[in-house]
Amino acid sequence: MSAQSARRDSHTVQSLLAVAVEVFNVRGYDGTSMEDLAKAAGITKSSIYHHVAGKEELLRLAVTRALDGLFTVLDEPPAREGAAATRLEYVIRRTCAELIENLPYVTLLLRVRGNTAAEREALERRRDFDHRVAELVAEAIAEGDLRADLDPRLTSRLVFGLVNSLTEWYRPQEHGVGGSGEADHSAVADALVALVFDGVRNPAAPKTPGFA
Amino acid sequence: MSAQSARRDSHTVQSLLAVAVEVFNVRGYDGTSMEDLAKAAGITKSSIYHHVAGKEELLRLAVTRALDGLFTVLDEPPAREGAAATRLEYVIRRTCAELIENLPYVTLLLRVRGNTAAEREALERRRDFDHRVAELVAEAIAEGDLRADLDPRLTSRLVFGLVNSLTEWYRPQEHGVGGSGEADHSAVADALVALVFDGVRNPAAPKTPGFA
Repeated sequence: MSAQSARRDSHTVQSLLAVAVEVFNVRGYDGTSMEDLAKAAGITKSSIYHHVAGKEELLRLAVTRALDGLFTVLDEPPAREGAAATRLEYVIRRTCAELIENLPYVTLLLRVRGNTAAEREALERRRDFDHRVAELVAEAIAEGDLRADLDPRLTSRLVFGLVNSLTEWYRPQEHGVGGSGEADHSAVADALVALVFDGVRNPAAPKTPGFA
Repeated sequence: MSAQSARRDSHTVQSLLAVAVEVFNVRGYDGTSMEDLAKAAGITKSSIYHHVAGKEELLRLAVTRALDGLFTVLDEPPAREGAAATRLEYVIRRTCAELIENLPYVTLLLRVRGNTAAEREALERRRDFDHRVAELVAEAIAEGDLRADLDPRLTSRLVFGLVNSLTEWYRPQEHGVGGSGEADHSAVADALVALVFDGVRNPAAPKTPGFA
């Protein structure tokens, strides 16, 4: 036994979870063994079993944390009251912030493929989330704020594809103004909301031949 | 030895690659063993070594195929001549089509994390691609067709985050008109281009208070 693996176990479930999520994101869930987790956490495999039933419980806890964050947004008053387009904008901004706040957890959530029961449940909840956003898009079209030619389901998928893609490249230290986390969130969320609602076209430009 | 693994090897490198990419996408590259690949291909491990040097060569061939498809787009005449905004639109449409055409290969490309030399080279080429698109966005801003307040690098990342997110949910059989692959590509690409250039807002709508 190495000096590292013999270290006294000062982990909580939450601190162990943070380590596990990092390892899952680097090696892939399927590619991670309990041995890998024990090494990364600096404790023995049997110490891990004092905290959780095993690898799948860690996965379940991690994706549940990510999903609970997203669903919380849908239940906040500004997501439930007022014009649907305004609620949609709120949901987009807040899910960007949630995603950035819980970056490793949401990254893991977006990579689950349905190989285990925990993964299939997570995919089911993601579909439910998409469905609720598609309803919001449909309402905003009915209220006349969004273009009538939009397909609500396709639009919901594209918009959340865009939000989710932040996990692929967003690194807190690289972005934002003055290095503050708050500014980070809102600069990226502003750019994303502007793209979703108004696109990149300069409204003052004369129409370029052959351009969109 | 099972009847399946004893089956005569009728694979080419390309057919073996197609099998490997499917397995990598389900199990993760790190979670896939040569044994898994042999089982999925219905041949022995030693037969695989007749075709390729190993797992990493399969990964390299797969991501190279995906990347070559994307870079080909940048070299096509409509991506090199004319107004930058028109070229950008062309690049977005064509990369959507390439992605859908090579769906499993691009899906794998987008999941590589830099754990091996092949993966690090792929990430390097992806950054190069992003850089060339960011230049196109900067030119289109300078030409006045795109909004002057856009950050070219952030915009390039958001737009290709959006394109890349198709790998997460696009399944050819679910989309398009009349089930034709062509219609598939263009219906999704149309929706995506419309979102990128003009956003979801109904231009005829009176401004909703508090909405974007």
